Amino acid sequence: MNPNSLLSMRDLNTEDIYRILDDAQAFSFAYQDWQLPQRTLIANLFFENSTRTHHSFVSAELQLGALISDFSAEASSVKKGESLYDTVRTFESIGYHAVVIRHPQDAYFKELENIKIPVLNAGDGCGNHPTQCLLDLLTMRQEFQCLENLRVLIVGDIDHSRVAHSNREALEMLGSTVRYSGPKQWVSDQKIYMDLDEGIQWADVVMLLRIQRERGASIQMDAGRYLQTYGLTKERYARMKEHAIIMHPAPVNRGVEIDDALVECEKSRIFKQMENGVLVRKAVIKRAFALPFMKGASNERA
Amino acid sequence: MNPNSLLSMRDLNTEDIYRILDDAQAFSFAYQDWQLPQRTLIANLFFENSTRTHHSFVSAELQLGALISDFSAEASSVKKGESLYDTVRTFESIGYHAVVIRHPQDAYFKELENIKIPVLNAGDGCGNHPTQCLLDLLTMRQEFQCLENLRVLIVGDIDHSRVAHSNREALEMLGSTVRYSGPKQWVSDQKIYMDLDEGIQWADVVMLLRIQRERGASIQMDAGRYLQTYGLTKERYARMKEHAIIMHPAPVNRGVEIDDALVECEKSRIFKQMENGVLVRKAVIKRAFALPFMKGASNERA
Amino acid sequence: MNPNSLLSMRDLNTEDIYRILDDAQAFSFAYQDWQLPQRTLIANLFFENSTRTHHSFVSAELQLGALISDFSAEASSVKKGESLYDTVRTFESIGYHAVVIRHPQDAYFKELENIKIPVLNAGDGCGNHPTQCLLDLLTMRQEFQCLENLRVLIVGDIDHSRVAHSNREALEMLGSTVRYSGPKQWVSDQKIYMDLDEGIQWADVVMLLRIQRERGASIQMDAGRYLQTYGLTKERYARMKEHAIIMHPAPVNRGVEIDDALVECEKSRIFKQMENGVLVRKAVIKRAFALPFMKGASNERA
Repeated sequence: MNPNSLLSMRDLNTEDIYRILDDAQAFSFAYQDWQLPQRTLIANLFFENSTRTHHSFVSAELQLGALISDFSAEASSVKKGESLYDTVRTFESIGYHAVVIRHPQDAYFKELENIKIPVLNAGDGCGNHPTQCLLDLLTMRQEFQCLENLRVLIVGDIDHSRVAHSNREALEMLGSTVRYSGPKQWVSDQKIYMDLDEGIQWADVVMLLRIQRERGASIQMDAGRYLQTYGLTKERYARMKEHAIIMHPAPVNRGVEIDDALVECEKSRIFKQMENGVLVRKAVIKRAFALPFMKGASNERA
Repeated sequence: MNPNSLLSMRDLNTEDIYRILDDAQAFSFAYQDWQLPQRTLIANLFFENSTRTHHSFVSAELQLGALISDFSAEASSVKKGESLYDTVRTFESIGYHAVVIRHPQDAYFKELENIKIPVLNAGDGCGNHPTQCLLDLLTMRQEFQCLENLRVLIVGDIDHSRVAHSNREALEMLGSTVRYSGPKQWVSDQKIYMDLDEGIQWADVVMLLRIQRERGASIQMDAGRYLQTYGLTKERYARMKEHAIIMHPAPVNRGVEIDDALVECEKSRIFKQMENGVLVRKAVIKRAFALPFMKGASNERA
Repeated sequence: MNPNSLLSMRDLNTEDIYRILDDAQAFSFAYQDWQLPQRTLIANLFFENSTRTHHSFVSAELQLGALISDFSAEASSVKKGESLYDTVRTFESIGYHAVVIRHPQDAYFKELENIKIPVLNAGDGCGNHPTQCLLDLLTMRQEFQCLENLRVLIVGDIDHSRVAHSNREALEMLGSTVRYSGPKQWVSDQKIYMDLDEGIQWADVVMLLRIQRERGASIQMDAGRYLQTYGLTKERYARMKEHAIIMHPAPVNRGVEIDDALVECEKSRIFKQMENGVLVRKAVIKRAFALPFMKGASNERA
């Protein structure tokens, strides 16, 4: 596996994380004109629906001058039963210099060990989603200038979330504290469970998670009742700390995880997260093409 | 809503229309090398099937140097129930400078009032399709050098048509006369109904409309009988004025609205309309990025 | 039909073939920076699933500096019943300078005689697939320095294959010998049938074909038994000539046509074929825009 791949937050140490965040932030000023080498080809292989992650990668790639190809599993030889390895190996063979992959299978990338070009993980099953985690960290750092001693409350569909676990691991490594809240049946790790109303007053960051019906989440409760019991209502909003912020990986179920009127309120960083997603993905792509590697493992085989 | 958006012909006065048509025509000579600012990102959000309109926008965007992303509702978070507003707000957040939208809901753009980037309407339900109307006007002006005192007969599925009403309104505003013909059950506005055989000899422009079965049009008649009764047969063609032209927004049901052999006949401007569609869309995109606006409402939020 | 189209290997004589192969090879060194004229637009119209051919064309086009549009039959007016001719004529009208087409109908291009821009055939039904044939020839020539006096054994689903027949015709024209092997019910032309175990020792090139279930191939045999009877097992591999190579158009059914462990073995050129596919497609695109033609039949109609 190419060492400039990004598969999981676990592959990154503290220094790696800060380097990516610094680079990401620099893309909003010093690196605004930074471009990939001419005729860099990147393929986006999305085997699951996605708006934000997919198009955020596309936006980052286009802004960096990449030539891109969007692969749709629906219109491909995957329909003829081709394996993920053979599909990715094909893109490598036909001249692509990196692939971005979202796939429903946990740790799909274990199949890809013999692939030489960088693989950027845009989400694997209920496993990892490292660029989402990085954009969350960037958003928090922009707000609090550091990632130490923050109190982060993650609320909702914890067990189906690729975001909750990576964020917890990364934040704990960086010196912050994470608590989970929401329906108890969705929080296997009860040791760090915190009551929602207590957590709301405790947290610097209230991160709401989407109920992922498409991953099997179910609850015997209508939307209004869920909001009252486990969601961010106006009443709870009023009890948040003055400097505290609201985050959500989106798409938001408006009126379920959060009151419709709060999605774009003053404390909300939900759309700011999306902006930051592009910055982080630019940094991750830049890292994928770090020059020392490019030299050794060029895709040219003439 | 961004004032450089184009949602409906009703937003344009006579002067606006002529400015767009002049610009469109200029793209075939003086503006051939006109390019958008570097790294302008445009997203095409098509929630309905389309060949012509979609790829005509794509062609215009590519020729103008835009970086583009095609959004397919099928492969997106719309499948997870995300609203149109949240989808468009996402594209705005991740760095797109304009969006082109086709959507089955009438006046979908009323939901988008808080969107800051320009929205270009590529068709809403049975409502508007302003770039189609503009390309029709351009085609007529190329032919007759003006848009006053023209006699335009629009034939067929009037009530399901986004084209008929906008064309009528625009043409009347510009000083021309429109009559409708075809099956009476498809023409709610009987005041301007004209018998087809009479109309054929009256008109400078015979504009045939597609029977839009996908919008619920139905008629108890086979194709051949429809052609004989309401379509452009060779016999009717022979009775058209010498300088008169045939138009159709396409896709054509060959042998239904028009005799197969007439689709590319001498008087037909059907494929010319498609060429003009690219010119008009270039003009509309140029207008969307009119400099005064760009300066004030830049997408940069660094 | 535009004379720079490429529809079938039958349109090419020996000199044409060698010119394309020479050009293709040159793209790996002398032509590395060769680019199409600025703002050349190419549309890829794929009416059938494809990974390799589709994205290989895309890769070639992007590397050559083309602006491209991918047309998906699913999201188009084809759903409204539009004919292939009208679809292609539309792309011609809206400014595309060439189209690449894959379509399930044999010889679909016979409908396209009035199209003026070059048509590049990326596969028609059970008919032709000229760029696949050319990349196969390029791969053989790289290996053996010539295309004369080669012994090529094509094994498997011959009758459903677009590859087998074109390869045979081209190779015989160039002075090589082709034999077919595999299940006899899939080989209508028994005159050149050769027993597999005999052929394995005879051949310079063992070309395995994919069982095309999607084209109606069926056989009463499980995968393991097929491999033993008609596939390339390790035992058969051991009996191949020292200099002989393995080819397969892919996607490979691993463990069916070939032992899983042999797909990337020393004699395998399966992924090399994919690399060569990009070189060949670049050459074919370059040929489509050969200057003498471009001058006469410019798409500009201003």
